[in-house]
Amino acid sequence: MSITRAVLHRLMVEPGNPANLAQRDPSWKGGKEFAHLHGKDAKKRAEEDLEQSRAEIAREQELLWASDTRSLLVIFQALDAAGKDGTIKHVMSGVNPQGCEVTSFKQPSAEDLDHDFLWRVARRLPERGRIGIFNRSHYEEVLVVRVHPELLAHQQLPPGPRGARFWKERFESINAFERHLARNGTTIVKFFLHVSKEEQRRRLLDRLEEPGKEWKFAAGDVSERQHWDAYVRAFEDAITATSTRWAPWYVIPADHKPLMRTLVAGVLVETIRSLAPTAPTVSPEQHAANEEARRLLEAEQQ
Amino acid sequence: MSITRAVLHRLMVEPGNPANLAQRDPSWKGGKEFAHLHGKDAKKRAEEDLEQSRAEIAREQELLWASDTRSLLVIFQALDAAGKDGTIKHVMSGVNPQGCEVTSFKQPSAEDLDHDFLWRVARRLPERGRIGIFNRSHYEEVLVVRVHPELLAHQQLPPGPRGARFWKERFESINAFERHLARNGTTIVKFFLHVSKEEQRRRLLDRLEEPGKEWKFAAGDVSERQHWDAYVRAFEDAITATSTRWAPWYVIPADHKPLMRTLVAGVLVETIRSLAPTAPTVSPEQHAANEEARRLLEAEQQ
Repeated sequence: MSITRAVLHRLMVEPGNPANLAQRDPSWKGGKEFAHLHGKDAKKRAEEDLEQSRAEIAREQELLWASDTRSLLVIFQALDAAGKDGTIKHVMSGVNPQGCEVTSFKQPSAEDLDHDFLWRVARRLPERGRIGIFNRSHYEEVLVVRVHPELLAHQQLPPGPRGARFWKERFESINAFERHLARNGTTIVKFFLHVSKEEQRRRLLDRLEEPGKEWKFAAGDVSERQHWDAYVRAFEDAITATSTRWAPWYVIPADHKPLMRTLVAGVLVETIRSLAPTAPTVSPEQHAANEEARRLLEAEQQ
Repeated sequence: MSITRAVLHRLMVEPGNPANLAQRDPSWKGGKEFAHLHGKDAKKRAEEDLEQSRAEIAREQELLWASDTRSLLVIFQALDAAGKDGTIKHVMSGVNPQGCEVTSFKQPSAEDLDHDFLWRVARRLPERGRIGIFNRSHYEEVLVVRVHPELLAHQQLPPGPRGARFWKERFESINAFERHLARNGTTIVKFFLHVSKEEQRRRLLDRLEEPGKEWKFAAGDVSERQHWDAYVRAFEDAITATSTRWAPWYVIPADHKPLMRTLVAGVLVETIRSLAPTAPTVSPEQHAANEEARRLLEAEQQ
C-alpha cells in the first residue's frame, strides 16, 4: 500500500533538525490510516498490505535492473531485537534475488580493522541496477563504538584525542561518502527501527520461552541493555548529524511489528518510485544491427 | 512439488559416464508426471507447483541459515536465451534475500585476468548458511574460452601448449576446487539448461517482436549461433569431465519453460532437503547463561 506524504514526513528526520528520539513514540500505532493493522484480522490485512508493496518493489526493481544506471542502498540500524532480520525477510522476500543483495555486518575482521572504517562497507555496495541492503553498516562505528570507546584501541588509528571532534569527523566522513555515492547514482535510504526498552525486554524473554528458539537468544543482548541510555544518545547524535537531503534517516516505530513492516515497505516503495527507472532505449545503430540479426535468424528458417 | 527419484536420475549425469547431450531431448515434455504443465491451465498449475517448491526451499533455507554450518552453491550454465535469468527469478523469488546471493559473472576484468581463473569465483562463494547462485561461473573458462581459444591470449598465462592436456588440467583444477568446497561444507549442484537451436531462434526473434523488450536483444547472441556445434561439444566435454559425486550436473530440458522451472525447483528441493539442516542446539553452559539473563530481565519488571 502507499503511505501518505504526511506519514513520510512524520517518519523522516528533516535534514538539519534534531532527530528528537525522545519525542518519537516507539509504540505509535499509526493513527486512523493504519487502524486496520490492529485488532481483528490485523495479521491478514498486514500481510495483504505487504504483499502489495512487495509486488510494487519487485516491479520497480526489474526496471532498475534493466536501466543498469542507478542503485538503491537501504541501511538498517537498530537496537537488538527491534526486528531488523524479520523486516528484511518480510519486506524483501519476493524481490528477485538476482537484483537484491543483503550484507550483514558482524564484528570487523583483523583485515577490516587494518583499513579505514568505510573500507569494508564500500566493498559491499550494490552494483548498478541492484538493491543493496545493509543489516548494520558503517553506522556501527558511531553507535556501538561510541558506547564502547574501548573498541577504538583495536582500530589501529593514528594517535589523537577521541573527543567530540573525533566523532564529528566520523560524521563528516560518512556524509561525504554518502554524498559521493548519491552523486554517482546510488540512492540511499536509512532506517532506524525504534523499539522501546520494555518491548525489547518482552521480545528477549519471548526468545527464551518459544520452544526451539532458545539458540536465537544471546545473553550479551541483555548486558547491552545496561547501556540503553548511552545507545539512545549515540543514535540521537548520529541521526541528527547524518540525516541529509541525499541520504535521509527514517525513524520507524518498532513496537508493533506489522506496522513497522508496512511503514518500511511504504517508504521503500516511495523511494524506488522516485528513482523512476525506465527500460533502456535502443539507439538507431543498435536497432539497425538488430534488424540485420533478425534477417539472419529468419533466413535460417528456409 | 516433489520430483521422483526416476526423474532425478534421468536428469543427472552419472559421474564417470558421458553427458550424452545428443541423446537428451531439449524439448522433452516430462511424460505423464508433468502432463499438467502442458495444455489447458498449464500456466496456473505450473505456478502452483513453483509456489510449493519456493515455500519448501524458503523453509529449508531458514534452517540452513540457523545452522550456520553448510552452504549451497547452485551453478547455472546455458547457451543464450535458454532461460537462466528467468529461472533464477521464478525459482528463487520468495526466498529471504538475506539468505541468498546471486552473482552474475560477466566478462572478466583486467584484475580478474591477473589471477588464476578460479580467483574471481572463489571471492563470491556463499557464506555458511546461505544459498549462493552463480549465473555463469568458472565453467565459462572451459566453454566460451574453449570455443574462442583466442581469448586465452588475454589471460596472462604461463607459456605452453593449449591442446587437450591444457583443457584436461582445467577440468582437474575445477574438480579439485569443488571437492575442497564440498569437504568444507558447501554442497554444489550444477544445472545445464539445455535449449534446442530452433527454440533459441524463436526466443531471440521474440525479443525483437515484443514491444519495449528490444533492449534485451544482443546482436552478438546471433553471431554466437554460428558456433553452436562447437558449444555443444564444449558442454559435452566439460559436463562429462566434471559431473562428480560431490558436484553433479543436471541437464534440464529447456524448450518448455514451465517444465524447466519445475524441474530445477524440484532438484533444488531434493538437494536442500538432503542437507537436512537443523536448528542449532544450546549447550548446557549457554543455557545456564541464558537462565541468568532471564532472571535479570524478569527482575526489571518489579
